[in-house]
Amino acid sequence: MRGAVFHALTVNQFDVPLVWELMERAEWLRGLDREEARTRLQGKIVATLFYEPSTRTRLSFESAVLRLGGSVVGAENARESSSSKKGETLEDVFRVVGCYADAIVIRHHDQHELDRAARFSPVPIVNAGAGSGEHPTQALLDVYTIWRELGRIEHLTVAVMGDLKYGRTVHSLLRLLAKFPGVRVRLFHPAPLGLPDDLARELAASGLALERAPDLASAIRGADVVYQTRIQFERLAGEVDPNAASLYALTKDHLALLPDHARILHPLPRVGEIAPEVDDDVRAAYFRQVENGLYMRMALLDAMLGGERR
Amino acid sequence: MRGAVFHALTVNQFDVPLVWELMERAEWLRGLDREEARTRLQGKIVATLFYEPSTRTRLSFESAVLRLGGSVVGAENARESSSSKKGETLEDVFRVVGCYADAIVIRHHDQHELDRAARFSPVPIVNAGAGSGEHPTQALLDVYTIWRELGRIEHLTVAVMGDLKYGRTVHSLLRLLAKFPGVRVRLFHPAPLGLPDDLARELAASGLALERAPDLASAIRGADVVYQTRIQFERLAGEVDPNAASLYALTKDHLALLPDHARILHPLPRVGEIAPEVDDDVRAAYFRQVENGLYMRMALLDAMLGGERR
Amino acid sequence: MRGAVFHALTVNQFDVPLVWELMERAEWLRGLDREEARTRLQGKIVATLFYEPSTRTRLSFESAVLRLGGSVVGAENARESSSSKKGETLEDVFRVVGCYADAIVIRHHDQHELDRAARFSPVPIVNAGAGSGEHPTQALLDVYTIWRELGRIEHLTVAVMGDLKYGRTVHSLLRLLAKFPGVRVRLFHPAPLGLPDDLARELAASGLALERAPDLASAIRGADVVYQTRIQFERLAGEVDPNAASLYALTKDHLALLPDHARILHPLPRVGEIAPEVDDDVRAAYFRQVENGLYMRMALLDAMLGGERR
Repeated sequence: MRGAVFHALTVNQFDVPLVWELMERAEWLRGLDREEARTRLQGKIVATLFYEPSTRTRLSFESAVLRLGGSVVGAENARESSSSKKGETLEDVFRVVGCYADAIVIRHHDQHELDRAARFSPVPIVNAGAGSGEHPTQALLDVYTIWRELGRIEHLTVAVMGDLKYGRTVHSLLRLLAKFPGVRVRLFHPAPLGLPDDLARELAASGLALERAPDLASAIRGADVVYQTRIQFERLAGEVDPNAASLYALTKDHLALLPDHARILHPLPRVGEIAPEVDDDVRAAYFRQVENGLYMRMALLDAMLGGERR
Repeated sequence: MRGAVFHALTVNQFDVPLVWELMERAEWLRGLDREEARTRLQGKIVATLFYEPSTRTRLSFESAVLRLGGSVVGAENARESSSSKKGETLEDVFRVVGCYADAIVIRHHDQHELDRAARFSPVPIVNAGAGSGEHPTQALLDVYTIWRELGRIEHLTVAVMGDLKYGRTVHSLLRLLAKFPGVRVRLFHPAPLGLPDDLARELAASGLALERAPDLASAIRGADVVYQTRIQFERLAGEVDPNAASLYALTKDHLALLPDHARILHPLPRVGEIAPEVDDDVRAAYFRQVENGLYMRMALLDAMLGGERR
Repeated sequence: MRGAVFHALTVNQFDVPLVWELMERAEWLRGLDREEARTRLQGKIVATLFYEPSTRTRLSFESAVLRLGGSVVGAENARESSSSKKGETLEDVFRVVGCYADAIVIRHHDQHELDRAARFSPVPIVNAGAGSGEHPTQALLDVYTIWRELGRIEHLTVAVMGDLKYGRTVHSLLRLLAKFPGVRVRLFHPAPLGLPDDLARELAASGLALERAPDLASAIRGADVVYQTRIQFERLAGEVDPNAASLYALTKDHLALLPDHARILHPLPRVGEIAPEVDDDVRAAYFRQVENGLYMRMALLDAMLGGERR
């Protein structure tokens, strides 16, 4: 296991058995009492380097480390650090921080630089979101949430909505879902924010059934999973009518289109694309998704550093 | 107890018996050796979210958590975090961070938003200073210092000086003192920086005796407690002569006006409003006040998360 | 010992027996297993205050504390904190933070202010780099690396290159080397970046043999230690031809000039002044130097707070 998850840079590293192993490990860790869990990374140190600040994701990882009994050293704003400004390469950063920590969780703006530099790291690197690249732990926790909430990942109809062009969480999630049989995806997005062509081709080649929905209702009607994401309309000035935001927002009125077993996910933060009135519906799974994220990140770090499950 | 202190948002929540319980708990924690104290929050995680950076207050809370054996995840500059910039609501922040932490200590710019959002939090929220609103833990530690230094809180004459308009520590302190019998307050401040009218009325209605002093000497002469605060004269350009600063500054010469049992407090940081030459006088209690703050914050967190006193 | 290292502000505090004691302590800590090491600062809290952000140095100190079982409270960007902006003095900062922590590690821009304020601190202060002043722990880890790699510190020829004017690591290292007998130093630098005159005089008076080399090859030929540092050519616009950078950069071609036992050190970060092709040579000691830094900082903190060696 330790060999199987050395770095976690892209969902491409995670095949279906490994995803299962991580979900089972997450369940197992969830079942431990706090004191038992804190023996797993006792004495281990994890560094969190955020070149783009993200309180939410950083706190999720840091809590995961602490819940496993490890310690954290962190940089909330690594780009402001003098050595980064001085032009130090990321491989030197990894070689140096790898002397201080047993693993490095990093949010960096460039997936390619990350992939290249990771080869020089003496310790495991976890990608905590890389520019418009990948966000593998988000995809793992999304899939874990689908499994926990619906009991399966296979043969599902998933509506994926919002910004599919720049949304790294969507990119990672679709790549991961493509590994499971029979997943059909309905896409709904403003015209300029569709999936990148090469990603659409890659996913189709992997056997994922993709179709574009003409409107929100068509996208979600009868879906098993609705995966909503945020659209930065301010980026689309001139291309999309800003009043169009309501066409992409999920409200209480849409709930009638969803089966009782359906679940609504969102990587958060949300702004207006899911109305707060939806929160109280049992199908709104996004806050449970946050908690699952904690356990999935615990599972990943435990698989990297904690050794065999007892 | 646990029920009594769920959130700590305003001093209005704290009645006299609860203040006593917290002061006694602070004394009890002070008496424990370090190892014993560290069993109190063992395995607990506290998040510190500072939307306005404040090293001093954040470190006070974080040390309190660590001294009790808990762990900290923190955001030194939460406003720079991407999700805050993206427009996420504070209630979503609390719902998310409440999945990672057992309590949240927050410095936020808006007391009203804080009060509203706290209702959605799954975990206790501690207000670590909210804009021009409240700073309840500062008031608790101020009162704790008065009690430790003078042996009582009742029937005292307290000179409160400096910026009484924007000073949230003064607002919280006066509200808390109003709950104790027989406290008389002398106010001394530049004309434009008096107590807000509605607060003055609220305090008078609570039975606090307030009078305005014409000068510093009249304010402090024979007082039991002198509570000095910082004035931002740069804010008052055109309204107050900047050379007036010396009228509001406490120097060695003033010490003769104070009884031997009197004590000088300051929430810190100070700039020039207490001359360093005062520091060595035993009546200068502001650095002991800092240490009391550590124990009062330990007491509050212990009451929230640590369970019954042994 | 505890008395001997109260603060660590300048290398001038460290005489040869104390350097030996710290190096031996570093070796001893290195030999402990992680669990044993974590008993040394159990229950102790160290504050890290970085007025100039430096992820690398901060993480080194924080890992050192955690490896010894202590806890950390930290400010990644202390200058942004409100109290610093409000004009609080550094002695007040130390008196306050000294209530929260058992020691304070600080990077501050002004060595003189640091020296003065430290006298008011109730807890030990560790200088983690002060403007163009000193960086004593870097010098200690440099000397520790020389000893570990070459087996001795005495009677060595050391080539010191790069920015010798503003480079505080060079200043501290030369002052420390001057305490050991028979060290000969060859300096190589752009004309405007020589050693400050008063430092050169101070070092010569201490018995350090200094000579200036005309080119890189002359500086390093037959040297036991090559200490390379970064030059900020952008600072030298108009004074030095920016194309001159290659004259000061160490490449694979230079390795033939060095004896097999020679070692190349660098305080890092590096930009182009050591080509990555040098990294694989066994004489390239700069990443081992990083690891030695962790153990030297553990040794210093342990000498301050951990009590007697067992």
